[in-house]
Amino acid sequence: MRTLKLTLAYDGTAYAGWQMQAGGRPTIQGVVQEVLRRILQEPVHLIGSGRTDAGVHALAQVAHVRTDAILPVTRLQHALNSLLPSDIVVTGLEEAPRTFHARFAAKTKRYRYRLVTGPVVLPFERCYVHHVRRHLNVAVMRREAMALRGRHDVRAFHRSGRPVADTRRTIVEACVIRRDPSHLDIDIEADGFLYMMVRSIVGTLLDVGRGSRPAGTVARILKTQDRRLVGPTAPAKGLCLVGVTYSKSCRARIKMS
Amino acid sequence: MRTLKLTLAYDGTAYAGWQMQAGGRPTIQGVVQEVLRRILQEPVHLIGSGRTDAGVHALAQVAHVRTDAILPVTRLQHALNSLLPSDIVVTGLEEAPRTFHARFAAKTKRYRYRLVTGPVVLPFERCYVHHVRRHLNVAVMRREAMALRGRHDVRAFHRSGRPVADTRRTIVEACVIRRDPSHLDIDIEADGFLYMMVRSIVGTLLDVGRGSRPAGTVARILKTQDRRLVGPTAPAKGLCLVGVTYSKSCRARIKMS
Repeated sequence: MRTLKLTLAYDGTAYAGWQMQAGGRPTIQGVVQEVLRRILQEPVHLIGSGRTDAGVHALAQVAHVRTDAILPVTRLQHALNSLLPSDIVVTGLEEAPRTFHARFAAKTKRYRYRLVTGPVVLPFERCYVHHVRRHLNVAVMRREAMALRGRHDVRAFHRSGRPVADTRRTIVEACVIRRDPSHLDIDIEADGFLYMMVRSIVGTLLDVGRGSRPAGTVARILKTQDRRLVGPTAPAKGLCLVGVTYSKSCRARIKMS
Repeated sequence: MRTLKLTLAYDGTAYAGWQMQAGGRPTIQGVVQEVLRRILQEPVHLIGSGRTDAGVHALAQVAHVRTDAILPVTRLQHALNSLLPSDIVVTGLEEAPRTFHARFAAKTKRYRYRLVTGPVVLPFERCYVHHVRRHLNVAVMRREAMALRGRHDVRAFHRSGRPVADTRRTIVEACVIRRDPSHLDIDIEADGFLYMMVRSIVGTLLDVGRGSRPAGTVARILKTQDRRLVGPTAPAKGLCLVGVTYSKSCRARIKMS
């Protein structure tokens, strides 16, 4: 039995997220798993590093599959990309240690939220950014993002009725990057994320950047877990899973161009 | 009567090109003109710097319209972008000299053809690039492109039964740019283009780059006008009109990010 590690890029626009569902719109996991099954001619179970929500993109989602098939990885990758729709691409495929697990072995995941702050969104990026028309105080947003770093109870940013046993997470990086005069990225890397957590954080940072919530809001949320201080959830289309890190040989992370 | 100069960016994927047609798929000119008519409440005629073919994109197409409406340009631009579909964006709108004509006043137009030469096309760029899997000799392609510069009879690159009276054009720039290890751009700027000319040139450069036509092919085509030496027409989706230049105050050109 081999364990194969896949790195996937996808445009999430047309999908109901990563996770397979009974009925409804197609999911990334469902589509890739079905194509794998067709190529390998055996039932397979594709396990991702985590779920991405409906409409969220990935530059480097990581997943694994266990198989008895002997097909070389280069041929399998080629076969997958030939059969997958053009909005899902296998950018990497390699043999992994037998015990590798895309979800349990993941150390951190990094998300990028992309904002256009200029007057117009170019048509080529319209599915991958959120347009913010009002002026943002980026310096204030940067300081606000810094308060996220470290280990905290982040339950206030959880947007689901579904309870989670442990809502503490370690945020190893949270920064606001001015990519060019009309583009702003918000990067957050952590050892785990709750449902809609990044989009709740982005909504809060945007509220502070616009001046509709005071500086210090993030620190207050992390201290009090008061959900009423959290901003509205930012739209899915601006969000992208840009990388997953693994210890030692299991690294998988690429930079967004 | 005012003359307004519009700069437009569009994703041409869903359109039958710039030029209005009776019936069939929508065109850029048709969609923008109809929205202008709705806003200005008068019949208007939108004239572009030139046609772009079905599936071809624009970062900075220029067009003009003459109107008696008194709406300020900033409000008109905002109204246009509110009503246009998200794959067409008015990136600039300004008052132009009364006699300004987007087509007749254009000095040069610049097209960019975008190639992915790496193993995979990321889903985010799938509608805007042509994927070339075989190795390309970029140095040879660069020398080949240089031969295009100057004034020539370019009729061999014309792909239409429709005759053109004068097939001489001045190519002011033709270059092959390695944007990063997996992306290659071919830029061509000229005082005019014949139907499918850029895509025929790109197809020829690709043939030379792959080694399936000898170095010196472009020079031979320009000397002999022998169509049999011209490569296959490259797909529309890789092509983008990136700028139009006008003399003096009528400049309109932006750089592609």
